[in-house]
Amino acid sequence: MKQCGKQTACLENPVPIGSSACVAGKKEGQGPLGATLDTQYEDGLLGLKSWEQAESAMQKDALNLALSKGKYTESSLRFILAGDLLGQCIGSAFGIRGCAVPFLGLYGACSTMAQSLGLGALLVDGGYADRVGVVTSSHFCGSERQFRLPLEYGGQRAPTAQWTVTGAGAAILEKPSAVSGCEADSQPQVSHVTFGKIVDMGIKDVSYMGAAMAPAAFDTLSAHFADCGTAPEDYDLIVTGDLGSTGADILRDLFAKNGVSLGSQYTDCGVMIFDLNDTDAGDGGSGCGCSAVVLCGHILNGMRDRQWRNVLFCGTGALFSTVSAQQGESIPSICHAVRIVAPGS
Amino acid sequence: MKQCGKQTACLENPVPIGSSACVAGKKEGQGPLGATLDTQYEDGLLGLKSWEQAESAMQKDALNLALSKGKYTESSLRFILAGDLLGQCIGSAFGIRGCAVPFLGLYGACSTMAQSLGLGALLVDGGYADRVGVVTSSHFCGSERQFRLPLEYGGQRAPTAQWTVTGAGAAILEKPSAVSGCEADSQPQVSHVTFGKIVDMGIKDVSYMGAAMAPAAFDTLSAHFADCGTAPEDYDLIVTGDLGSTGADILRDLFAKNGVSLGSQYTDCGVMIFDLNDTDAGDGGSGCGCSAVVLCGHILNGMRDRQWRNVLFCGTGALFSTVSAQQGESIPSICHAVRIVAPGS
Repeated sequence: MKQCGKQTACLENPVPIGSSACVAGKKEGQGPLGATLDTQYEDGLLGLKSWEQAESAMQKDALNLALSKGKYTESSLRFILAGDLLGQCIGSAFGIRGCAVPFLGLYGACSTMAQSLGLGALLVDGGYADRVGVVTSSHFCGSERQFRLPLEYGGQRAPTAQWTVTGAGAAILEKPSAVSGCEADSQPQVSHVTFGKIVDMGIKDVSYMGAAMAPAAFDTLSAHFADCGTAPEDYDLIVTGDLGSTGADILRDLFAKNGVSLGSQYTDCGVMIFDLNDTDAGDGGSGCGCSAVVLCGHILNGMRDRQWRNVLFCGTGALFSTVSAQQGESIPSICHAVRIVAPGS
Repeated sequence: MKQCGKQTACLENPVPIGSSACVAGKKEGQGPLGATLDTQYEDGLLGLKSWEQAESAMQKDALNLALSKGKYTESSLRFILAGDLLGQCIGSAFGIRGCAVPFLGLYGACSTMAQSLGLGALLVDGGYADRVGVVTSSHFCGSERQFRLPLEYGGQRAPTAQWTVTGAGAAILEKPSAVSGCEADSQPQVSHVTFGKIVDMGIKDVSYMGAAMAPAAFDTLSAHFADCGTAPEDYDLIVTGDLGSTGADILRDLFAKNGVSLGSQYTDCGVMIFDLNDTDAGDGGSGCGCSAVVLCGHILNGMRDRQWRNVLFCGTGALFSTVSAQQGESIPSICHAVRIVAPGS
């Protein structure tokens, strides 16, 4: 039974995440999760000529690190699924350009890592691939150029604005081994995937995306719990990425109004990645790189260390552009949820 | 055996395309395929306030028409896969916003319809969905604003430049029926999917995208033929979308140099959709809407009418942006191929 309830895919044989890696910039390295980075760059340009080139290089670095940590070759990948925030997803196109592996470009704004991980798991579970790489990225400077104002302008930020993470995360999904006891089978595994609907409650403030995205997170998490017959207390970590601090509060409130407590096991990647007393980071991190870095480092490492056995990873995305915002449109939002379990769960 | 050769997915039970629909603008309506349009708009704004709103409305119209032609309800869709050319894919986000159906955003530039159709077929074949909607779109005016110059500038176009199609196409994929003789089973069916690698031969001329994309098409078609043990003569229609006239010639040449004739059954959606004696259209049509309109009208109608029984539909995409072009980068390109067969083939 691969279709659970209205919108969840249930994988009878959970798909192992054979390896993962994350890379990020200096500000992320100085944050609470700095020690979980596989590479921390001192230079935001990575010695290259543009922020966009730097972002693509981070994708490639993250993917190569994940491959080498798992002792996999690039050519053993059947597909690479990738995405980013830049117009026409050039972070991914140029990042993956050198790989001789079929490429699927995805766009889910900051939810892209969850979308990639979920879709990658289905492609493996369905038998279409023995091994798939997923990678997403963002870059603060490229993102400011894309979405906001020239950095040189030095504009003031709203307190609810989020800070785009400079970083990338990659994970390798693979077919459960026919031989039990194989290394990949002792890794965290994707067991359920709940792709979300677009939810738009009319929020137009692009400096308050947490408010736009929280209702989408509420919708998808509610669907996931209903489809799986679970409740928040059945998970030892529920993590959205990236609602930011006030967005996460709104999500807690939405559940509380429905008589459900998300509990202390709920947190948000945007809240975790920066020290929010550092006012520069505003309401928390964001960008396709944020939840990718937190997942591929902190969360999956913690699962390997048996800190958590049952994680609900919920990517949230604000599906707007500068054009739509300038045209006065509201912010359609989405959330995709992926349940990741420890082996034997 | 779902994995054929190095990069093709083989569907043991081909996935029926239960219905399809296409909508487009005035120029497309006046072209050779005008009679295949389900709706032709007289007004490029569709009575709305912006070209972007018009593009989203076309996506919604195409999807709704495909649903109604197949007598399907929107709520019977398990997923909608959609994409477009606009930055952050707002054509799709705002087009699908009103649908209470899980949404997966894809980006493959003009290859997006083939990517969506292929991925949708795998999600159905894998058992994750009984019915999936796929839809892609483009709009000439929105695309000019996104990629080129203000329309008011009236700039001259290079002879190899392509003309972005104003249109959208949608198709509904569904599980083969348990009861043979069902209506959907008499429809064209997806039997093979070959997702392509990114190929970049260093072409930097954004007015000559056919030259950039032809090597990607050569790579994917070659892989498809090798994986399936087929040759061009095994298909009664091979169609790229959209290399344009000179790009299609380059592809023929690339195969000829390898001793393979693509034959007269090879053509290109960009060549078909406009009368190329109309110099406005330059080298042919382009945009996520071009191959979507040609597939969801002309090609699938022709298959239903038994004109063709064995079609290789190859979406081609130029994965660049104005930012990458202005930074002097070349144009990474991709091609995804989907084999569509008549029932009983």
